[in-house]
Order: sequence, then structure tokens, then C-alpha cells
Amino acid sequence: MLKQIINRTREKVPLIHNITNYVSANDCANIILACGASPIMAEDFDEVEEVTSISAALVINTGILTKAKLAAMLAAGRRANELGHPVILDPVGAGVSRFRTNSILRLLNEIRVQVLRGNSSEIKHLYEIYERNSGMSQLEPGSNPQKGVDVSDKDIITEDNLDYYIMIAKKLTVYSGAIIVMTGTIDIVTDGLRVKLIRNGCTMLGLVSGSGCMLSALIGAHCGANGQMCFEACVAAVGAVGLCGEYAYEKMLLKKEGSASYRTYLIDFISQLDGDELMQGIKLEER
Amino acid sequence: MLKQIINRTREKVPLIHNITNYVSANDCANIILACGASPIMAEDFDEVEEVTSISAALVINTGILTKAKLAAMLAAGRRANELGHPVILDPVGAGVSRFRTNSILRLLNEIRVQVLRGNSSEIKHLYEIYERNSGMSQLEPGSNPQKGVDVSDKDIITEDNLDYYIMIAKKLTVYSGAIIVMTGTIDIVTDGLRVKLIRNGCTMLGLVSGSGCMLSALIGAHCGANGQMCFEACVAAVGAVGLCGEYAYEKMLLKKEGSASYRTYLIDFISQLDGDELMQGIKLEER
Amino acid sequence: MLKQIINRTREKVPLIHNITNYVSANDCANIILACGASPIMAEDFDEVEEVTSISAALVINTGILTKAKLAAMLAAGRRANELGHPVILDPVGAGVSRFRTNSILRLLNEIRVQVLRGNSSEIKHLYEIYERNSGMSQLEPGSNPQKGVDVSDKDIITEDNLDYYIMIAKKLTVYSGAIIVMTGTIDIVTDGLRVKLIRNGCTMLGLVSGSGCMLSALIGAHCGANGQMCFEACVAAVGAVGLCGEYAYEKMLLKKEGSASYRTYLIDFISQLDGDELMQGIKLEER
Repeated sequence: MLKQIINRTREKVPLIHNITNYVSANDCANIILACGASPIMAEDFDEVEEVTSISAALVINTGILTKAKLAAMLAAGRRANELGHPVILDPVGAGVSRFRTNSILRLLNEIRVQVLRGNSSEIKHLYEIYERNSGMSQLEPGSNPQKGVDVSDKDIITEDNLDYYIMIAKKLTVYSGAIIVMTGTIDIVTDGLRVKLIRNGCTMLGLVSGSGCMLSALIGAHCGANGQMCFEACVAAVGAVGLCGEYAYEKMLLKKEGSASYRTYLIDFISQLDGDELMQGIKLEER
Repeated sequence: MLKQIINRTREKVPLIHNITNYVSANDCANIILACGASPIMAEDFDEVEEVTSISAALVINTGILTKAKLAAMLAAGRRANELGHPVILDPVGAGVSRFRTNSILRLLNEIRVQVLRGNSSEIKHLYEIYERNSGMSQLEPGSNPQKGVDVSDKDIITEDNLDYYIMIAKKLTVYSGAIIVMTGTIDIVTDGLRVKLIRNGCTMLGLVSGSGCMLSALIGAHCGANGQMCFEACVAAVGAVGLCGEYAYEKMLLKKEGSASYRTYLIDFISQLDGDELMQGIKLEER
Repeated sequence: MLKQIINRTREKVPLIHNITNYVSANDCANIILACGASPIMAEDFDEVEEVTSISAALVINTGILTKAKLAAMLAAGRRANELGHPVILDPVGAGVSRFRTNSILRLLNEIRVQVLRGNSSEIKHLYEIYERNSGMSQLEPGSNPQKGVDVSDKDIITEDNLDYYIMIAKKLTVYSGAIIVMTGTIDIVTDGLRVKLIRNGCTMLGLVSGSGCMLSALIGAHCGANGQMCFEACVAAVGAVGLCGEYAYEKMLLKKEGSASYRTYLIDFISQLDGDELMQGIKLEER
């Protein structure tokens, strides 16, 4: 299954519309090309609906969010919903400001999001807001601000607290209506019914700016090519980044290099990955 | 001749003003430095005319176009025209939306563009619009949307359809008043009278985000340093990217690496290229 | 001392708020991660104060400045001042336009800047404006435009003119109230009383887009982690980039590679640098 997901993306070369941030946009475009898809970035209000219309999936990323971008995201998201295109939301910085958090909640309320991909801090923050407001129509942002866009020490997923994070992810599928992809030391993918754990990856991924954004872009590519199989597309993308992250780490160590070489190797290995290799390397567990 | 073009850019270190997109801006700045020139990115309406005035060439790139950027491009373009500075237009995404296409047509109408550099899909799309509207003062955008910012399968240049693409490029020089640089499996440079084909390059260039943008930036650098010789500057830049693209591919294969290493090597080789090497390696044909 | 600076940043993992340009933003984020800190980019007026509040330092970079960004910089800067967070200003392009220069002067007037980091052309340009207007409340921008964002040939620091540049830097500490970090062939760090020269680095740094921006980001990271020791943090950051720039150059030569590999190695070595290595490699001179 995962093998077909990966291979179909290379065959179909889907166009992926990204409304994203300028820190990781180049890496996102390159990882989309590396997996066999074609990226397009467009964010002017006057063109996003048309660009979404010719695309196979829409990836919305709230890094460096601005009000102009938010308006474009909402317009593109509604159009994608009308057309039945999968929408992937990466809630970068959920919790760093009321503007950022409220915008993310607005996106979740006004757009049908197929996949919500964040790190454990972001996902937990959103979960806590929904939990606090459950039953209320008007959501209020969290009062406890997050520590930036990286995972907080207090939110690291371990074997001991894994059940808690699985519970959070499952509940958030209900609140958001989206497949939840929560990344951390152990990655969790759930649609509320199925729960998959992926135990690939390494801590170096956290030292590359935009590695989370790249994963969200890759999910967009695989969802775009694999229509009704968004859940499997998420698992494949998470496994691919984790596995290629391991390969990149081995190569970096072997060559005694650092974080910038690691980033290069990560994208290199994604460009070389095929379905069979993913099937052999992915450390997948069903819960 | 091409040798002097390349070498003069390293001697003169011209300042190149870019109004461009945030996906490829870093690569464009680095390739401009790599060939010996100096990049400046500026896009606020209140400074673009001054920045253009101190620069030797203006490169306008419509990737991730916004209305604010369009206004800045028009102002900078007019100033460059007044000063006789070469203007290079990269019509990224021509055909993906009415906004994008209309903006590109407006740039072509209101600014005297010396070089129009696009892939075969973009150039063909613009040609078709002009063809359809020939004799009309009011241009209308194409109704057949493009498949994103990459080349469509149906627009791949082959030996069989080469004459057709040469005809398109020649006609578009008349419609636009610009030198046309159409890139694809075979690259075409024409000013309407002269036609040069460059048969360097490899398909990997299409798997690097912004490789076309980088070429347009490089054309800007060489035009900026080589005043009245824009045609030769275009040929040199196309040859340089093609040749360095081949070198990068050989190195990537040898080291069993992927698309991100390829991008690194491409810029590396541009930074190492001298005029003699280009003369020896370019596969140039006159038509 | 410098050793502790470097090591404390890795221990504390400070959050660094950047309002910057899209050419170098990715490199800045990655170098902040490489030295052990955590970057956040945020520039919407409605969130910059909150983001600054949860951060340990604010880095303002005027590359590709827009009016919207300027407003956000002023708001974030005032908030950082209220909270006593160090503010680092990188006056990219001082002198390229009245808008750019006036905006930089406005930032220096309205915000208490702890560190002003520019190349010798930018610093000299700002010095000349203050000198011309000394005693006046209304500053006027320089009439002699700069040659882009790179150092002009006429502003290269040599052993012969070193005393002049030290004098400029010292005077500018008085005018601006900031520690001055002037980078060039010899780097100068001064708070008006102390003057430190750092003789590391190599000319290749000038061929990497955003190497100055990266240094400013690194200064932000070290200032953020080392509270009251901004002067030492500046020296450590300048030494780190210079030393890692030398390592990267050796490696690039050894592998016969070019400017893009150089950039990768620069960030690699920053990610591997520890305090002891810096102490051994830094070529520091007190004046």
C-alpha cells in the first residue's frame, strides 16, 4: 500500500498549491519535486482560487502568517473544499500569539481540513483549546503561550506518555474533523479509528529549519496523487521523512559533517526513495 | 565572444536589481554572486526606482506575484527603461491564473523588456495569447490554463517539433520586442534575426526548484555587465547553466547523491566557470 | 569567557525573534538552530509584540524592507526595549535609497539598539550621516548612494586605514548608543570603550548571499542566551563565523568545490563548534 502511494506520486506528478512561509518555501518546493510532484506557490487573493483549481492538493502553512495570507488561505481553502481537493494544514506557531492561534482556529472552523500536521507542542496546544471550549461555538485561544515554533521540552513524546498523546490526537480528529499527524520522537498518525505509530527519524530533524514544513508539503504531494487514500499518504510521508532522516544522519556522521549537509542529504534521499525501500525501512506499529 | 561575456561580468561586478519570489530568491542571489556580480533585492514601491537607478540591470520574476510587487515592477521597469538598463522578465506561471497572465501582459506592454526568459509552456502560452489577439489593442488572457510553473508534457521540445518552437520564439520577438530565451530539452535564444540553439543541460535541472529563475538571474548579471550585447549574454548564460548542469549531474551520479546535492553542485560549478571552459563545453548551433 | 558564551547558548536554547528578509531567512533560521538556539520569524503587526515578549532577543534586518515590515519592527523593538531584551539591527542596504536609509535612522532613533552589525560600507554610510547632522534633531539621509548591499571597493578595511575605521566605529557607538560590529577583511567590535579586532574569516564569505545576515542572527542567539554580556556575545559570534568560514574554505579547496558547498560547510561547522575550539582558533586583538 505505502509502496503504491510513493510510486503513484512519481507517476502522476500532481500539482501542489502551497501558501506558506518564506523560511522553508524553497525546501518545501524542492522536497515536492524530489518526491515526484510539482509545486506551485501562489498567495495573491486574486489568483489563489484559480491556482487551487488546477492543483491536486492545497498545503496551508501558518509560518510568518500575515493578514493578507490568511485571507488568501481562506479563499483557497474554500475553493479546494468545493472541488474535493485535500487540504493540509500545518499550524506553525500555534500558541505563539493570539493572532496566530486565532487564525489557525479560524482556518479549522471555516475550511474542511483533511490533514492537520504539527509537532507535539502545536497539536497539544490546539487540543487544549478545543477541550477548554468544548460545547462552545466561539473558540478562545490558549492563554499559555508556546515556546516558539519548535517543540517544548515539556511536550516531548516518550514511551511513558505515549498513550496520552495518542488520546490527544484521537480527540483532536473529532474536534477538527482532520487526520492528525503529530510528529516528535515517535510520530502518530490517526484518523480517529486507526492509529499508526512511526518510529523512524532522529533528533537531527529538529535541527533543520522547516523539517516539519517539508513533511507537510510531502503529505500534500502524496495526498494529491492518491485521492481517497489520505491516511495512507500521511503514513507514507511520515515514514519517508523519518527513514530518509535516518539515512541522512548516518551519512552525516560518516562524513563528519553538520546540520546543513544533513538537510541536503535529507532531500537527496527523498529524491532517491522508492516504494520498496520505504516498505523495508519503515518502523510501523498499529495501535 | 562568449568568453569575454563571462569574464567581463567577473571584472565589472555589476549590481543586479531583482524583484522576485521568495522560493528561489536565495538561489538567485547566490548564482548572481557565483558568476561575479552583486545582487540586490528590493520591492517596496518607495525605493525600487532608486535601487534600479544604481543597478546595471533589472530582473523581474513573476513567481508568487502580488499586486504590491506588480506595482513595484512597473515603477522599476519604467525607470530602467529611462536609464537604458536592460530589463529581464521571467514570466513564472504564465497561464496559471488570469491575474498572473494579465500582469505579465501588462509588464510586456508597459515596459520595454530586453529579454523574456521562460520555459516552453510559458513562452508558448504567451505566444498563443498574442497570436489570438494580434491586431487588437486589448489583450485577453489565454483560456487554457497551464499546468503550474513546470513544463507540461505536451510542451516538451523535441527534434521533431523544434521548428515549431523556433517559429513561436521568433514571432514572439516581434510581438514582445524582446529577445526570447525559451528553455527546455533544447534551449532556443533568438532576437528575431539570429537563432541559437543550445543543447547542453539535463533533465535534473527540472527537478531543482527555481533553476529557471536562476537562469534569468544569471542572464541579468551578464546583461548588466555587457551593455549592448544582451543577445550574446543570453547565450552565455544559457550555456553556462546547461554546461554546469551537466557537470553537476556527473558529480551527483558519481557520488550517488540526489536533487539537493545537484542544486549545490550547479551553483558550485557556476562559481568556478571561466570563459574558456564555457567555450569548450557549449553545444551551440546556429539556425 | 567566549567559551562560556558559546556553550551557554547550547544549554539555554533561547528563542530568537527575527524580522528579516526572504533572501537569507532560511540560512538565518538554520544558523540559529546550528548554534543551539531556536528561531522564530514573525512580522505581522498584530503578533510581533507578543512574539517578542516570549523571545530572548530580537533581530531586525532591513533587507527587502517594506513599509509594513518597518511598522512591525518599530512595534517589536519598542516591546523588546520595555522588556529589556537585546535588539540587534542589521542595516542591510543603508544608503541604497532614501526609504531604506531613513527607515534605518528611524529604527535607531526610536528603538534602543544594543548591537548594530553592518559591513564597512553600511557602517561608514551611517557614520557619515550622523557626522553631517551632528547636533541636529532631524537626520537627513546621505546623498551619496551605496553600491548595493555588498561592500564597495573603496570601503575595504586594510591595515593602513584600520585606525580610521576604528574611529568611525567608536564614534558611531556614541551616536547610536549601540555596540558596533563592523565586518570586513578585519572585523571590529566596539562599545566605545573596548575595541576588539577579529582577524578570522576569508573573502569567500562575501560570495555567499546573506553571510552578514547570518552573523547578525548568530549575534542575536548569543545575546539572547547571555543576557548582560552582549559585547562578549558579539565577539564570540564574529569569531565563530570567521573561524568556521576558514574551516569551510579549507574544506571547499580540498574538495575542489564552489560557493554553494562553502555555504553548506559554513553552517555545518557552526553546528559543530564548541567553546574550546573557538578559544583556540579565534585571532583576537585588543586595541
